Amino acid sequence: MAPLSLKINAQRLNDTLQETCSRWGAIRNSTGMQRLTLSQADRDVRDWLVEEARSLGCQVKVDEMGNIFCIRSGTNNGLAPIAMGSHLDTQPAGKLLTHPLSHHKVRIDVLIFSLKGGRYDGILGVQAGLEVLRTLHENNLQTHSPIALIDWTNEEGARFSGAMMSSGVWSQQSFSNFEVCHNTVDIEGIKMGDALKEIGYLGETKCDYRANPLSAHFELHIEQGVRLENEKKTMGVVTSVQSMRWHTIRVSGTEGHAGTTPMGVRADALVSACKFITAVRDAAVSTGLGVGTVGVISSDTQSQATIPAGINFTIDIRCSTDEMVEELYKNVFEKFNEILAEENNGTAWKSVRTWALPESIFDVQCIDSVRSAAVELVGASEVLEMKSAAGHDSAWVYYLCFQTTTRPC
Amino acid sequence: MAPLSLKINAQRLNDTLQETCSRWGAIRNSTGMQRLTLSQADRDVRDWLVEEARSLGCQVKVDEMGNIFCIRSGTNNGLAPIAMGSHLDTQPAGKLLTHPLSHHKVRIDVLIFSLKGGRYDGILGVQAGLEVLRTLHENNLQTHSPIALIDWTNEEGARFSGAMMSSGVWSQQSFSNFEVCHNTVDIEGIKMGDALKEIGYLGETKCDYRANPLSAHFELHIEQGVRLENEKKTMGVVTSVQSMRWHTIRVSGTEGHAGTTPMGVRADALVSACKFITAVRDAAVSTGLGVGTVGVISSDTQSQATIPAGINFTIDIRCSTDEMVEELYKNVFEKFNEILAEENNGTAWKSVRTWALPESIFDVQCIDSVRSAAVELVGASEVLEMKSAAGHDSAWVYYLCFQTTTRPC
Repeated sequence: MAPLSLKINAQRLNDTLQETCSRWGAIRNSTGMQRLTLSQADRDVRDWLVEEARSLGCQVKVDEMGNIFCIRSGTNNGLAPIAMGSHLDTQPAGKLLTHPLSHHKVRIDVLIFSLKGGRYDGILGVQAGLEVLRTLHENNLQTHSPIALIDWTNEEGARFSGAMMSSGVWSQQSFSNFEVCHNTVDIEGIKMGDALKEIGYLGETKCDYRANPLSAHFELHIEQGVRLENEKKTMGVVTSVQSMRWHTIRVSGTEGHAGTTPMGVRADALVSACKFITAVRDAAVSTGLGVGTVGVISSDTQSQATIPAGINFTIDIRCSTDEMVEELYKNVFEKFNEILAEENNGTAWKSVRTWALPESIFDVQCIDSVRSAAVELVGASEVLEMKSAAGHDSAWVYYLCFQTTTRPC
Repeated sequence: MAPLSLKINAQRLNDTLQETCSRWGAIRNSTGMQRLTLSQADRDVRDWLVEEARSLGCQVKVDEMGNIFCIRSGTNNGLAPIAMGSHLDTQPAGKLLTHPLSHHKVRIDVLIFSLKGGRYDGILGVQAGLEVLRTLHENNLQTHSPIALIDWTNEEGARFSGAMMSSGVWSQQSFSNFEVCHNTVDIEGIKMGDALKEIGYLGETKCDYRANPLSAHFELHIEQGVRLENEKKTMGVVTSVQSMRWHTIRVSGTEGHAGTTPMGVRADALVSACKFITAVRDAAVSTGLGVGTVGVISSDTQSQATIPAGINFTIDIRCSTDEMVEELYKNVFEKFNEILAEENNGTAWKSVRTWALPESIFDVQCIDSVRSAAVELVGASEVLEMKSAAGHDSAWVYYLCFQTTTRPC
């Protein structure tokens, strides 16, 4: 099949993105966003998306995790759709307003955007897919396969814990099934299942790649890193997503009075935890295997005059391969034991693995089609093949596309 | 004046203490206590105390911080009362149930108690004072000075932040005045002034040593430490309270994505904070000047996949003298700067002094009377002169006793 000379309308894409972001979830006097999953703002933008898709002739299905599938028929509707998708939710405000990457620029077709906050995270991926649907529609183009535009629920995991939650459930490869997710509560104790019902997005379609299959999944996203900028490239062709794994660490000690307990007899859980957290950073740097971050820390007691007896913190480790993640964790945990042997203060630690995303190596044919489109658009010298350092819905979804029906094309 | 051979009734003291603790604020199936200041349990035990004191012929005054003064007339009521006092509130449950000192024993007259939780903290000091009033009353003894039994409000600072809060206000030497304290809120947003009103203990007497003076202040308390036990002594005669000072530290960095931000360009506020917290411990140990504790830590963001940009933690340093506290803080802050110079990662710190209690050196005449009573009771070989490592209401009150009216005796 000869390539078509269709072009999206970049101005319309940007106008639509800015307008919908300003209306639903914008932080006052800024371009930062606060559109937590299943909030009022999320409901409103979902309603808008569904209406837009229907006006373009799409059929809309909602599954039991609230994932929205807007499907445009092809000539062979027995094939599973080729999908474009990402997420319309964002992190809460604090993060976005201070995002270190806010000065970056991304080029889409001939338009240059300034990046601010969450507008060019998942939202861009959904809006770009919508612009493709609009372009197909106004050109009366009929595709072979059906085409799907997907809004995946709760990619951020900011309100209900668990990043890429609903694409993970669809893939049946993550730790959680839909019942566990429905019972997950937010900070106010609201269950996710109730929040889905509340905004009218608890659908009946099964959230399972076997019941609701796809043939392929494409996702446009900003880099969220500095490689493209440093290497002066315009477009990245993502060939894989790095491996990542989370652990929660519990450090236990003995509570004591800050005035009357001599330094020599203390089992201070916070001091041990601090040495562990420093060790996570040091191990990542010294081994060069990947990145290691402690993003969350909490203490059982919060009393100025009490020696802490229980500390919880999380570790996020990401490396190119699953084996490197395993090796870096091994190194970190060995360091923990060395620290305790040295401290010899009666504190102890244990670890629970809470989440993981295995390395995702995308399909060669899909990569080829992205690369050729990018090269055609900006020239080969502007294109960089790269691994994604951040997780995305595609990292769960790509794998199952090949487990379903006949491949398209 | 020749010493009297009066003896308190130790069995009655213990029975009263256990019974009132069991009724108001006991933790089910344990001898641990949870009697937060100005709670229902605190109101009930206050009501009981007031009734008991009145039945012994005392006049009761309540001041604007809820401090209760039960005053027994003397022959010369122009003198300011000689006071016995402490506090009826306790820390919340968690702390008490795991108190490392729960196996200690304290000897009062001929009775041995097992120490569990908060029953022998401030509560013992108030109950012992009541037993003295009862003994004076049943022996029809008239003292020269009036005698006061005092329940000081919110010594713990557990519900409304600020340890020894109301004795501090009375002394006019702490950082807070009564208006600031009335506006202090608990975790549910309830103002302390409203909580005082709610339980009926917002009194009209001015909370000020000049308006409501005392001649002396005696306080019975457990050690909360291990010296008496280690040195096999029965009673400590406290000659002074060590100096203590609290700071809140703010560490700031730059937020970033845990996957896409390379290790080399991170300004991770938590890693810097962890090195600082370890340095507090190390400085206390290496200088030998005193004890240093970080009891509270919090992070602006709590996202597994976000590099923390803002961390707050508290430092509690206690040394024998004010100068040693100053020197240890100087040492700690120098270490912070050395750490930042070494890390060179773009993080920064600043410090705010939030609370301090200067070294308290008690009056020689008061110490003498405690010592001679202790020696008479258990023999000189069982008595140890010592410094208190923990703060107590007496540390604020003692000083002002000498600023008021004519000294007694």
